[in-house]
Amino acid sequence: MSAEFLDALRATLGPEHVLSEGDLSAYEVDWRKRWHGKALAVARPADTAQVAAVLRLCAQHGVTVVPQGGNTGLVVGSVPDDTGRQLVLSLRRMNRVRSFDTANLTLTVDAGCVLQAVQEAAGAQGLLFPLSLAAEGSATIGGNLASNAGGTQVLRYGNARELCLGLEVVTAQGEVWDGLSGLRKDNTGYDLRDLFIGSEGTLGVITAATLKLFPQPAAVTTAMAACASLEQSVALLKAARARLGAGLTGFEVMGRFALDLVAKHFPELPRPLPGAAWTVLLEQSDEESETHAQERFEALLAAALEDGLIEDAAVAQSQAQSKAMWHVRESISLAQAQEGLNIKHDIALPVSNIPAFCAQADAALQAAFPGVRIVNFGHLGDGNLHYNVQVPEGGDGAAFLREHEAAVNRVVFDAVQAFDGSFSAEHGIGSLKREELAQRKSPTALGLMRAIKQALDPQGVLNPGRVL
Amino acid sequence: MSAEFLDALRATLGPEHVLSEGDLSAYEVDWRKRWHGKALAVARPADTAQVAAVLRLCAQHGVTVVPQGGNTGLVVGSVPDDTGRQLVLSLRRMNRVRSFDTANLTLTVDAGCVLQAVQEAAGAQGLLFPLSLAAEGSATIGGNLASNAGGTQVLRYGNARELCLGLEVVTAQGEVWDGLSGLRKDNTGYDLRDLFIGSEGTLGVITAATLKLFPQPAAVTTAMAACASLEQSVALLKAARARLGAGLTGFEVMGRFALDLVAKHFPELPRPLPGAAWTVLLEQSDEESETHAQERFEALLAAALEDGLIEDAAVAQSQAQSKAMWHVRESISLAQAQEGLNIKHDIALPVSNIPAFCAQADAALQAAFPGVRIVNFGHLGDGNLHYNVQVPEGGDGAAFLREHEAAVNRVVFDAVQAFDGSFSAEHGIGSLKREELAQRKSPTALGLMRAIKQALDPQGVLNPGRVL
Repeated sequence: MSAEFLDALRATLGPEHVLSEGDLSAYEVDWRKRWHGKALAVARPADTAQVAAVLRLCAQHGVTVVPQGGNTGLVVGSVPDDTGRQLVLSLRRMNRVRSFDTANLTLTVDAGCVLQAVQEAAGAQGLLFPLSLAAEGSATIGGNLASNAGGTQVLRYGNARELCLGLEVVTAQGEVWDGLSGLRKDNTGYDLRDLFIGSEGTLGVITAATLKLFPQPAAVTTAMAACASLEQSVALLKAARARLGAGLTGFEVMGRFALDLVAKHFPELPRPLPGAAWTVLLEQSDEESETHAQERFEALLAAALEDGLIEDAAVAQSQAQSKAMWHVRESISLAQAQEGLNIKHDIALPVSNIPAFCAQADAALQAAFPGVRIVNFGHLGDGNLHYNVQVPEGGDGAAFLREHEAAVNRVVFDAVQAFDGSFSAEHGIGSLKREELAQRKSPTALGLMRAIKQALDPQGVLNPGRVL
Repeated sequence: MSAEFLDALRATLGPEHVLSEGDLSAYEVDWRKRWHGKALAVARPADTAQVAAVLRLCAQHGVTVVPQGGNTGLVVGSVPDDTGRQLVLSLRRMNRVRSFDTANLTLTVDAGCVLQAVQEAAGAQGLLFPLSLAAEGSATIGGNLASNAGGTQVLRYGNARELCLGLEVVTAQGEVWDGLSGLRKDNTGYDLRDLFIGSEGTLGVITAATLKLFPQPAAVTTAMAACASLEQSVALLKAARARLGAGLTGFEVMGRFALDLVAKHFPELPRPLPGAAWTVLLEQSDEESETHAQERFEALLAAALEDGLIEDAAVAQSQAQSKAMWHVRESISLAQAQEGLNIKHDIALPVSNIPAFCAQADAALQAAFPGVRIVNFGHLGDGNLHYNVQVPEGGDGAAFLREHEAAVNRVVFDAVQAFDGSFSAEHGIGSLKREELAQRKSPTALGLMRAIKQALDPQGVLNPGRVL
């Protein structure tokens, strides 16, 4: 049965594009190496018609499909299970820029284009594709859309969802939906585009997308501010939004312990505001000039100091200083890894609830697991925290995780729920958070989702065991 | 059967909130008075629980439901058919502001709140809810979301869809989905919110929404520019976006004949650039000051003049002048009505295709219907034109429409399709454009939409005969 399927697949794609022997671990192991699956084979279609043909074969032979882009997901959603019966459908050969429309500020690309290549293609036209995240050198745009990726520019430009105008999708039945469109307004029927975005390959396979571009700003510059509390940070956010409007393109917060870890493991990095309980990194994009942006930062921060929203501040005086500030922020994850094992949470809250949430969750964790250390940082402007729990100093990390990871998650996610938050802000569900979804979403929400899955993929061909 | 249903309805809502006698035309006739329906009754629930109870009764008794907000729709989607068997479900009694979260920049309101009341509630907190459209004094936020309304601020702030973070919806089965959320990032399952937005009451009844707010800009000011061609207008848009970034909040275009009609019927209105083939109205929002905005306009327009993108320009020197410029733009529809009958089109195109589309459609219309006059204006920044066809001068309007309306639509929509556009940019489908949808969408798209409708409303209780 499998042999017949594989023969048909080879006839469709060419034998060299159906991998079934040798080391397939790049396709079978997830990004954080938490899961080692076993694929029936890896199919590498060249174009949309081949994707459609593969899906028709799968439907016909009852083979389930795991769509995969750069395989950089953090929730084990794009690798096969361990049965050796699932087909990995890798989109990476489909990496053409299909068309550019600079007057319309749009770009149409194959799903397998790497995010960084899309950014560079836009940049070569003097335009900006603002989606930006740590894995951008490997992640594909199809995967970014399937998981509705967030990243560092959401405050101004939105998530991947908001950056996409149109999609091409192959359905579970192997039909091609041509929803590519460069329109800013189009009210002709249901919003299929947004249904496929964020569905993690369980409702259809994204094969191409039309993306929004923006003019490149004349200058992008940063500043740092020291706050005595998260309440101050939230008040500073409001002031910064009011004064800088859409010019405010980044607003990151970093707790003192997060920066202590950076200082410990990367002592060569600068620490402009060493005493701060909370350090805010502000980024501003300006259509006029770097000088204009610096002046606006200085006016904002002077007013914030006077109003008691901040304790101290530093405005980057050069692109090098701006880069160095971001480098500190981006070094937190690495410093955490050097410090030892930890439990990561990618949560979102209404910005207004963040101080109270942190106070409650911090206290509950300390009460339940004395000595745990909270590495709290993230995209405060989006209400998105990476609220990570580092094991007690000198503790046995592996043993702690084995014994307590589930309980730590429960404490954090219960607090998240109590403060109207989300237990998965930008990483999605995959298989890792599937039980959380089943437990924490309302029966009505789950019922609607299941009805949609059943309607679009009644055979359950697409990425089974993910999301629902 | 009906009597039993009405008794149950009266017991649920109180007899005074079930209207079945007297003049119900406000609920039965559409906004443009093209359709006179006949309702079984009008139900006016007080809260979400009552909406759910009404829908359960309807499912039980096999009565179909037409949800209605301000009844300002332009596509006959919110009035009953003429059978006298459909229930109008009016949300207008549900008009509370439920909660404000100024630190999070969100507002949660009942679906029956009038748009203008929402704008005013935000304004009272010094904040901006940017959705703005002609019917805002009557339209409800629920209707705005059900139809994904556009309006004049889409270029900067997006359609109604982009302004909504969370929804509360009653399903066809009378269950309440509490999807109210003030989160900017939340990747926990399928995007139910965007599926309900724009579904025109056919998938569920929106009962409340959490909306995005923005800081009020320090100044909003306008300018006008004269372009010799639509090509110039499109080039000016690109230049304006590059120089003003998100500060550019409006970019409207008006053809000479549209402004000739305004001058003819409202001679008291100013016409700052009388010779222009195409007049562009630019709006800028600025966080600094009116002077700063005017300086940026002047720099933009001086550069555009030098680069040959415009022929002439005028920057408003006061709020009164800004208002007067908008007043001219907003008088076009009224001037058209005074001139006589016409055929309206609400279309969208990739901005880059607009000049070629207009050339082709203009020529095709002149060839088929000599003497017709094109009133072409709209939200060029969004690629959205109100491309209207006025009957030949002195012609019999009613006779022309009777004979030629369908053929005129065909010419226009064929050209729209040829240039990758949409035959309904911001008004939706309703019953008026349902056949167009059936003919012009691909079988795959229609199949997906029907599968979703069948999954969520298998009994066909919600707004049958609309959209699909």
